[in-house]
Amino acid sequence: MVNKKNDTYLCWLSHKGIKKSCYKEYLNNILVLNQSKIIDSAVSELKNAFMQAEAGKDVQNIYENEKEIIGHKYIKLCIEKNDKLVNEGYEIKYLMTAEKKECITICASDDKGILYGVFALLRLIEQNFDLKSKEIIENPKKNIRIVNHWDNIDGTVERGFAGNSVLFESCRNKDIMREVMDAIGGITATNKALRKAFNDDYKVADDLERINDYARLLSSVGINGAVINNTNVHQAETYLIDDKINIVKIISEILGRWGVKTYLSINFAAPITLGDLQTSDPLDKDVIKWWNKRAEYVYSEIPELGGFMVKADSEGRPGPFTYGRNHADGANMLASAIAPYGGMLIWRCFVYNCRQDWRDHTIDRAKAAFDCFSPLDGEFPDNVFLQIKNGPMDFQVREPITPLFGAMDKTNKLIEFQITQEYTGQQKHVCFLVPWWKKILSTPTYANNSTDNVEQRINGIAAIVNVGNDENWTGHFLAQANLYGYGRLAWDSNISSEQITEEWIKLTFGNDPLVMKNISRILMNSWETYEKYTSPLGIGWMVSPGHHYGPDVDGYEFSPWGTYHRADCKGIGIDRTLESGTGYAGQYNEPLKSLYNNLETCPDELLLFFHHVHYKYILKSGKTVIQHIYDTHFEGFEMVEKFIDEWKDVEEFIDQNVYIEVIERLNIQLDSCRDWRDQINTYFYRMSGIEDEKGRKIY
Amino acid sequence: MVNKKNDTYLCWLSHKGIKKSCYKEYLNNILVLNQSKIIDSAVSELKNAFMQAEAGKDVQNIYENEKEIIGHKYIKLCIEKNDKLVNEGYEIKYLMTAEKKECITICASDDKGILYGVFALLRLIEQNFDLKSKEIIENPKKNIRIVNHWDNIDGTVERGFAGNSVLFESCRNKDIMREVMDAIGGITATNKALRKAFNDDYKVADDLERINDYARLLSSVGINGAVINNTNVHQAETYLIDDKINIVKIISEILGRWGVKTYLSINFAAPITLGDLQTSDPLDKDVIKWWNKRAEYVYSEIPELGGFMVKADSEGRPGPFTYGRNHADGANMLASAIAPYGGMLIWRCFVYNCRQDWRDHTIDRAKAAFDCFSPLDGEFPDNVFLQIKNGPMDFQVREPITPLFGAMDKTNKLIEFQITQEYTGQQKHVCFLVPWWKKILSTPTYANNSTDNVEQRINGIAAIVNVGNDENWTGHFLAQANLYGYGRLAWDSNISSEQITEEWIKLTFGNDPLVMKNISRILMNSWETYEKYTSPLGIGWMVSPGHHYGPDVDGYEFSPWGTYHRADCKGIGIDRTLESGTGYAGQYNEPLKSLYNNLETCPDELLLFFHHVHYKYILKSGKTVIQHIYDTHFEGFEMVEKFIDEWKDVEEFIDQNVYIEVIERLNIQLDSCRDWRDQINTYFYRMSGIEDEKGRKIY
Repeated sequence: MVNKKNDTYLCWLSHKGIKKSCYKEYLNNILVLNQSKIIDSAVSELKNAFMQAEAGKDVQNIYENEKEIIGHKYIKLCIEKNDKLVNEGYEIKYLMTAEKKECITICASDDKGILYGVFALLRLIEQNFDLKSKEIIENPKKNIRIVNHWDNIDGTVERGFAGNSVLFESCRNKDIMREVMDAIGGITATNKALRKAFNDDYKVADDLERINDYARLLSSVGINGAVINNTNVHQAETYLIDDKINIVKIISEILGRWGVKTYLSINFAAPITLGDLQTSDPLDKDVIKWWNKRAEYVYSEIPELGGFMVKADSEGRPGPFTYGRNHADGANMLASAIAPYGGMLIWRCFVYNCRQDWRDHTIDRAKAAFDCFSPLDGEFPDNVFLQIKNGPMDFQVREPITPLFGAMDKTNKLIEFQITQEYTGQQKHVCFLVPWWKKILSTPTYANNSTDNVEQRINGIAAIVNVGNDENWTGHFLAQANLYGYGRLAWDSNISSEQITEEWIKLTFGNDPLVMKNISRILMNSWETYEKYTSPLGIGWMVSPGHHYGPDVDGYEFSPWGTYHRADCKGIGIDRTLESGTGYAGQYNEPLKSLYNNLETCPDELLLFFHHVHYKYILKSGKTVIQHIYDTHFEGFEMVEKFIDEWKDVEEFIDQNVYIEVIERLNIQLDSCRDWRDQINTYFYRMSGIEDEKGRKIY
Repeated sequence: MVNKKNDTYLCWLSHKGIKKSCYKEYLNNILVLNQSKIIDSAVSELKNAFMQAEAGKDVQNIYENEKEIIGHKYIKLCIEKNDKLVNEGYEIKYLMTAEKKECITICASDDKGILYGVFALLRLIEQNFDLKSKEIIENPKKNIRIVNHWDNIDGTVERGFAGNSVLFESCRNKDIMREVMDAIGGITATNKALRKAFNDDYKVADDLERINDYARLLSSVGINGAVINNTNVHQAETYLIDDKINIVKIISEILGRWGVKTYLSINFAAPITLGDLQTSDPLDKDVIKWWNKRAEYVYSEIPELGGFMVKADSEGRPGPFTYGRNHADGANMLASAIAPYGGMLIWRCFVYNCRQDWRDHTIDRAKAAFDCFSPLDGEFPDNVFLQIKNGPMDFQVREPITPLFGAMDKTNKLIEFQITQEYTGQQKHVCFLVPWWKKILSTPTYANNSTDNVEQRINGIAAIVNVGNDENWTGHFLAQANLYGYGRLAWDSNISSEQITEEWIKLTFGNDPLVMKNISRILMNSWETYEKYTSPLGIGWMVSPGHHYGPDVDGYEFSPWGTYHRADCKGIGIDRTLESGTGYAGQYNEPLKSLYNNLETCPDELLLFFHHVHYKYILKSGKTVIQHIYDTHFEGFEMVEKFIDEWKDVEEFIDQNVYIEVIERLNIQLDSCRDWRDQINTYFYRMSGIEDEKGRKIY
């Protein structure tokens, strides 16, 4: 069982920093002018913090009326009209009252704003921010800030690297399940059968307090929605909108207290799977009626439900294509069913042919989403949101942005990131993704000849979350920073990576300057380091098939998944140009189109994504492609060695358990990174026959 | 359930051919001069045959005394001293008695000889052999002719490609188990946990009649022993010498009726696993005592048990190395425990380092068995038999012989073949292995400056069997020929491949000349065809890791398994020479040593096993290595197309179900063979940059 007494249990929410804060006595008197469950949560968080500061002491006074206040320092929470605030935004200011009382007020136009304000206040005072120096006004840049769980209701997590689900568990056979899962080494196609094999009853995870703590973590960084079940909806999960709806109700109730709306992944074929109809054709009258009735039922049970998410016609999932319908037909029918209840319909754009013939160089998976969805612009109603992966492939360490962000002006769009490190070291490697996400969000799309970047083109943000039942929530302790950072970016993508890093380190580890220096160096360098020792120059993949961990250069080269490098003895890369390639570059607006299409202007880091070049092609860096490969792979390894040194240097300042956990993972990373370095270098040395200029050891 | 009424159910033992035989009326009168369970079996087989011939009619007369015979034609079975016969041998002759009765006598010096004689007689008359033309005298060349089962007692079969075990099944969860196994796609390390997860009770397979039929099949081709459980002895199977011994008793009883001795794979760590001791050190007094007592117990329960087989210190199995002992220490301790009961101790030589670093070119898995065992020659007692794989690696489509066959004069040796087609198409591809086995057995070893070939150097023969609960026993119907052929070769390795093929086709499909021509062409060409489209020139592997099906050129290239090709842009092959390589060639006796060591004399088909050469190196065939790769891969594909045509041409002569089964598998083979052709050709075209001289399509 997870040790909740542990100082490090609640990640950045330990409130340890309160102890040294000059504002801590304010927490002892709280004036609460409005009532709601969410405001109760806000107050409870202040109490939690005070308890941390005063070694277990409860807050003395909760007031409902300003006149009753006895103490001289207090915090005031109030909902009031304020032109500067949008929903969920907050204002924090220090003021001296007429009676010479000192007050910190948190104002907002709704209770969620109060909650976010409380978390912000705690975050600020734990970092020694001088509240008297200025007023804080914060509005979220986007209203939709959600996480996606790929959790199955048997408690397993697809692409989960931090243990089983925090939300679900199966009632029986848990030990067996875990053992089998461990033995199999993750969740693969296999598990469909396994899940069926272990088809017992499922339920909400026993540890409701942990679900509550999880909701606190999400809320504390401004996340306001969670799709609670796997986008691949299997047989059992289909019943979440049927006789298993109580599971959803319980989770929804807990998350809701913290302002986190619950969304459900649904099975497009549910009318068939649940045994009611012979078809799921979205234009069939009975199907429409069925979904209308089902939506009515679901919302009668859970009025606050955020909506549904659908992965259709992708990787074996059912969808409208089965019936000769398009994705607007599919999405709109469902959207219409939930619209009366304010429901949102999230429709994923991860649609491509996963049975491609590697021999055929004209098919290009990267083109699929744009080809499928852009013709449908204008056909979706207001409550449909297309969820689009950041890149056209699948969460590689480097990809260009998905061209759809620069298109579909008349369609609501969400960006989809992946916090869980499927392709970025699986929480065995440290890989802080915030700099990468910021880069993506700030990439200009040139839509309608504007300079609008991705962030400006989207209505919200979503990401597959990285948490599980491991004691530290994220498997790798440092991977907590990705969840923290995701939330902070979702709230405001203008916050710098450096600020996020600094916040997270201070809240998690305290204020020691060496800790700050070393851990921020590790985090800030980790993504580019991971890129250095894995696949080069935007080519992607080169991972072991199935589980996606560790190098296998040709692992997907002759597979049907559409993910190739096309290396031969002369060169490497996918030609996606308009003239001689697949034409994918043409999906971008100018000048991006020309930038990528043109070998001379294409940025180094995406060169092999767009062009097939000779190993001796000279990069903008001045190096040849092959020398770049060798150099980055040696450098990446050396960087990880440095991470280890830097981590060792802070041992005395870090909780011993956390120190050990992280050093163990860093050593695993070093081993794995050595494999990457040597396999990639050897592969390309053997292939090209070109010597390393620096004469280093290539096997 | 298997349809036993089906005409094709019992493979080559249908006795269909009897109907047209001029000798069939002899079967109606059988004179039996001796009694034993095995002779009962022999008589029952004659009855079975008669029943086939006469549409269900029973044999009319069984006599125990020659004088009582009423009919004019009869068969006589008698044990008698005969200088021309060794144990298990038989004589078949036709004679006219003084009373003008016509008699076919089967004489032998023991009851097993009678049984083999009966099977031989039936085989001969079903093929229209003229018994009057000559006497038949047949003695087995080897006394030890066994099959190895890699069956686990939960009913799964490691590297089994014909369904679950015919011998074992688990009592519960059978459907689940099958489903999970199917989903996982075979038996891997995973299954250790799965087996534990499903740790129910196990038992002998329900269908005892099928076990009996299986024993008939083995016996009919002269196989006289079966190791009934997997060489990798897991937790549950360890109890076969403990509280699960009844399972062994039942199987042993059934097999025994047909002259097939039962052997058990045992766990070297059984004293620990069974919870009795803290050590399995073979020199520890308590361990010795433990095994003595255990042997006493096992033999008191099953006096006819053939003995034990051990895989020690290999691929994670426990062994004497754990205690700083050598393999003679381990084997001899066990051999001594079972010697008093006439038990045989089979000790596998498949010992190598499976955690090798691919970067280190000096370690050579091929050398391991010789290095480990040859120093121990003379240290093993008479009842120890070293079981040595045919080649130094692991049942690849082409390997040189294991050098141990040319060494260890003072040690009993068995050769180990693999009938189950782990690396030769997994019973989805047709691959008739008899020509390959014959080639191995006839390879000279030059031991002690003699010309002794492998067959002359061994004391017996063993093979991992290819049967399972698929209705046709072997998955691919044509794979029955491998089991048939293995038995026939084990009896007498001088029988030609052509004769074995002809026998099997006649007994299985009848005497139609087109059937004979086409199926024998398919069979006789199938092994070399498989070689053509898979890994070239003796290099081996290039299979998908884990399940070992389908191409993956680099699948094992960066793995710890010691199985590499070392291809780069210039050339390919493993240098195993004495001068510049691993020195493996030095393990052979002269002139084999020089033959292989010398680039100029090394046969083409093993070139890359012994030498690293340039792609433009010219083979003895006159082709370059790269052109050979291209040509053979195109040829192999065309051959499979031909097999399909040849099979289609015999449709009208073949049982419809069998026809369809085989055509389906041939089509699967064609698809897979296209994958092989294109992946191998593309890989080497990309790598070498050298064009195909004939300008064919390489992707």
